[in-house]
Formats: sequence, C-alpha cells, structure tokens
Amino acid sequence: MTRFAMLAAGAAALTSLAAAAVAGPDARQASGAVLPPPRAEAPAPAPVLSPGEIAAQAPAADWIAIAADDLLVMDLAPGARGQARRVVIQLMPPPFAVPWVANIRTLAAAHWWDGLSVVRVQDNYVAQWGDPDGETPARARPLPPALRPTSDAPYQLRGDAPGWQRFAGLTIPRGTPAGYTAFEAGWPVAAEGTPDHAARWPVHCYGMVGVGRNLAPDRGTGAELYAVIGHAPRHLDRNIALVGRVVEGIEHLSSLPRGTGPLGFYADPAERVAIRQVRLASALPAAERPRLEYLSTDSAAFLRYAEARANRRDAFFNLPAGGADICNIPVPVRRAR
Amino acid sequence: MTRFAMLAAGAAALTSLAAAAVAGPDARQASGAVLPPPRAEAPAPAPVLSPGEIAAQAPAADWIAIAADDLLVMDLAPGARGQARRVVIQLMPPPFAVPWVANIRTLAAAHWWDGLSVVRVQDNYVAQWGDPDGETPARARPLPPALRPTSDAPYQLRGDAPGWQRFAGLTIPRGTPAGYTAFEAGWPVAAEGTPDHAARWPVHCYGMVGVGRNLAPDRGTGAELYAVIGHAPRHLDRNIALVGRVVEGIEHLSSLPRGTGPLGFYADPAERVAIRQVRLASALPAAERPRLEYLSTDSAAFLRYAEARANRRDAFFNLPAGGADICNIPVPVRRAR
Repeated sequence: MTRFAMLAAGAAALTSLAAAAVAGPDARQASGAVLPPPRAEAPAPAPVLSPGEIAAQAPAADWIAIAADDLLVMDLAPGARGQARRVVIQLMPPPFAVPWVANIRTLAAAHWWDGLSVVRVQDNYVAQWGDPDGETPARARPLPPALRPTSDAPYQLRGDAPGWQRFAGLTIPRGTPAGYTAFEAGWPVAAEGTPDHAARWPVHCYGMVGVGRNLAPDRGTGAELYAVIGHAPRHLDRNIALVGRVVEGIEHLSSLPRGTGPLGFYADPAERVAIRQVRLASALPAAERPRLEYLSTDSAAFLRYAEARANRRDAFFNLPAGGADICNIPVPVRRAR
Repeated sequence: MTRFAMLAAGAAALTSLAAAAVAGPDARQASGAVLPPPRAEAPAPAPVLSPGEIAAQAPAADWIAIAADDLLVMDLAPGARGQARRVVIQLMPPPFAVPWVANIRTLAAAHWWDGLSVVRVQDNYVAQWGDPDGETPARARPLPPALRPTSDAPYQLRGDAPGWQRFAGLTIPRGTPAGYTAFEAGWPVAAEGTPDHAARWPVHCYGMVGVGRNLAPDRGTGAELYAVIGHAPRHLDRNIALVGRVVEGIEHLSSLPRGTGPLGFYADPAERVAIRQVRLASALPAAERPRLEYLSTDSAAFLRYAEARANRRDAFFNLPAGGADICNIPVPVRRAR
C-alpha cells in the first residue's frame, strides 16, 4: 500500500532564536552619569540551517538504503581526461512503472545497452540514450524476447489513495498544473480527483528518467531512456512513462555537448558518447556496487527540509518565498553511511 | 508605462478539425450483398501545430527586434575543437534592474570582464562568471569608478500596476509560489498584492541572468553574474537581482564541466574557462552584431503559443496538462529575419 507523505500546513519552520536582552533599572553613578542597565547574557541566535544542513543532520534511521536491485548503473565511455563517467539511476518501485521497470531489468541482465550510445542531448530538456539504429529494422539491435508488453500499461494510477489528503493552503501549494503534489515513498507525485477516486502519476522533475516512445499507441519498451536536464517539463507528465531518477552522476549527462541535429539528436555518429555497459548494481561485484540512501519523505526531518526549501531563512536569503513547486524540493540522496 | 500581457482565461486553443463522415443509406447490390454506404469526402483533420510552429508562423510584425544596445555579447575562449563560444544576453529594460544594468553597460564599455573567467558551474543550478580574485583585495581587479550604488536598489517594483489583472482561473495558473505570474514586455514576472498596491519582480527561469552578491546588505554591482542552468530556482526571486536572460549560446555555459569545489566553484584555476571579451553588441563592428528578435508577449500569436505550451495537443501528446508554470513557457527568440 502506498503512502503519501503529507506536507502539513502546520509544519513548523526552523526559526532562529531571538536574542533576549533584559534591562534593569537605570543605575546612576554617584557623579550623576547614567550607566546603561545591566543586561543578562543572551544566547547568540542560532544560525538558521540550510535545507542541506537539515538533511545532513537527520537521524540515521530516517535514511533508507536503496537496494542494489533498484539501482541501474550506466558506465559511459571515459571522458576526455580519462575520467570514469558512471550514471546511477534509482528505479521506481511498484506500483509505479511496473512493466517498464521489469523490461529495464531484463535489458540490463541481457547486457543489451552495452556498446550503444547517448543519441540526443537537447538543452533545457533531455539527454537520451539507446540504439541509434533502433528505428531502422535492418540495423536495429534485436530486443530480448522476454520483454513485457506495455501497450496497456497505465501512465496514471487510479483508484483509492488511502490517506491521501488535499494540499489546499499548504506551504507547498497545489502542484502546477495538476491539482496536487506530494511525495510518495520518496518520489514526486501529482494527483487529481478525490480521495476515493484519485489518479496519480510521477512528475518530470530534473534528473527523472523516462521511456522514449513513438507516437501513441506506442508506449515504449524501456530500451530507449532519457533523463531530464533542464526545467521540469511537466507537459510530459501522464504522456510518457517515468521509471526512475538519476541519483548520482547526472553531470555526466547534463554537461554533454548538445546535439546539433533536430531536437538535439547528434547529427554525426562520432559525436555520440558510447555506453560501455549498463548493469543492475546487484549484478556488479559487491565491492563495485554504489551504496546509496535517500531521506525518507515520511520523516519529520524531510518535512523540515521541504519547509526550508519552500521558505529559505538561511543567511543568504532575505525573503522566504512562501512555497515551492515540488521539483524545487529534490529528495536528498547520499552515499550510505 | 509597463503593460502586462494578459493570458486570458478565454484564449482559444488551436484545435484540430474533426473529420466529418457522411453516411448514406445502405446500397444493396443486385446479388443481395450489402455495400458500405457511400461517404462524402471529408477534409483530413488539420494537424495541431506545436508551440514552436505557432511561434514560427506568427506575423513578422509580432516579432520585436532587440536593440544592439540591449545585447551583452560574451565570447568565451574557444572550445576543445576550436569552435567559437558566444553567449548573448538580452538586458532587461527599465523599470527593471536599472542600476545593475547601467553598471553592466559601464563594465562592458570598460572591457572589464576581458581575461576573467567562468568561476562556478553547479549542476541543476547556475553557471557564474567574474573575477576569481574578486574577494581578495590584494588581487582583485579594480572596478570602474563610475559604477552606481545598488545598496538601495529594489528587488521588487512597487506601486500602481495599471492594467494588471488577476490570473485566477486562467490556463496559466497562479504562479508558484508567488500569487500571480505574467509576461511584461517579454519578461517573466511574478506579482503580489492588489492592482493598486502591487509588488512585482522578475522570475528566475532557465537562462535568466542575475547579479552575484555577498550577504545582505550587499546587493552586488553587476560585476559577478550568473545564469540559471537547471530547474527554475524560484527561491532566489526577490532575494537577488535579475538583469536579463541568455538568448543565444546558453549551451556554452550549461554544458561546461561542473566544478568540484563547494557550490560548484572550480577548485583548480586551470578548470576555469576564460572570457575573451564582453561587449555590448552596439560596440561590435556592425557586421558582427547578433541581430535577434523576440515574440511580443502582447501578441495574439504569443497567447496561442503560451496556450499550446500549457496544453500540448500536437501529435506526440495524449493528454494536455491543463496549465503550465511560467518557466515552462519560454519567450521565443530568433535571429532577425
């Protein structure tokens, strides 16, 4: 059963302590001069923690380890200075994206992406990878036979959403453009409807990973994937399947040269960065597996973190915004302690 | 007098024509078989234009030339393959950002940025440039004497906003987190208050350029600048001055390697991309000036374009979103025709 993390209207923001000065009666010196009244020592105001500091100070129990089976590890060809370029993607759990994620596991186990490439990088939009010949039957790499069909897979989940509550009046205002947004088991989700008849779907925030497809009725297999590398393209929500998010190494995609072909596809095959291999972390030698954890979106610490993202009161800021869109509250992920 | 472009609730979206089929009575053949009824020829449905197509087809009169005096042209050191890397920034007009933009003109005229560098690139946030030694008095490059003070310059404009109307119920919903968003003379703006007592300010969309500063009360001179290269950091709105937007060449900033120091600052000076020169376009030889134009946000074509961004009905999309945040409606800019 999925649970929404409620970002309650009443969440207290972490505020700085006001310095309290206690004044006593004027003390006149014998000469008649007036001394300033004695003041009690006042504690220095506590600095307001930044959102990052709030997350870092969350109790260890609030951090949830990401299973090796839920991490897709893509190693691109080394960079110009020989540096490794590893992109780590956390896959969405059921009930989201079930057949596509299953296909991604199948493709990874089949080493299907090995030797393929990044085919498209469009500024303020996506980086996309897969089989550059995927649309040319004579040259396309054969897909594994065990892929599940996705033509009937839903982009939105429908039905009861137990515990789902409205967000009217909350610090994090209703999602734009969907009615409501919330975090569900660590994922940004939007929803419409009523608690009895809700539709909900994942949101295309920066770093989210989705499934390339052709025109409807095609829904994509999972063999062609993209990551968001610009302002959240919310118009893609509910129109295409999201399957996860980049939790480490997004810069290896977002800093790639942009393609000069239409939509940012690389016009020259030589421009495409090659994919050395893609594996589930569980298929890597234990010592090589990324060990990552995310801050539980059901935790009090996450609530304080989100409130701080929505209302910055740390030193640099003069005016808290009064709210934030869900994509301006990235879920913290870090190397496991 | 500034004018807001109203994105009216009643704006008609460009819709596809429904194909009309006319069926006649069954025609029985002499043999008794039933032929399908004759159909009148029906026009093929008009394809729904994409937002880009709508903009491209806007009348020439809807495109406003950007004056050479309003374009800041930054030439970075050539790229690895010797390619030129020119970043063109459109400066905001009065009443926005007046003293900072004036300072930027002064700095450009003084060739002040020549030989300085890109000092910081933080993923999903900003690329920033200026004097790497700016905080070290012994090594900082002296600023021109004619810079205007900015310590009292407002981040928000206050007062009457003639013609300003509420956005309740519009396709582009109320801004997040500010109350309202609109386009003013081609710029994304948020607003709060009432028509008689409004505060309004520019919005930190992707590509917008702002003024680096230290902690309050410092408001920055304009010598240190940054561009947004990720999801719109709306928490910066009203906390820091925006002065313009990158209208060409953003990829030369957004595709730079990310800095490995704190906040994405480059730890190693050798990593910083050098700035060859920064000039107002009006200071360049006429043949070298970028000639650009933007789609007037007061035009009917822009209204249709914005509606299409908010409700994608072109072929790829199955479900229009029902709205868009202002930063998902970038103002079209192109080379002048």
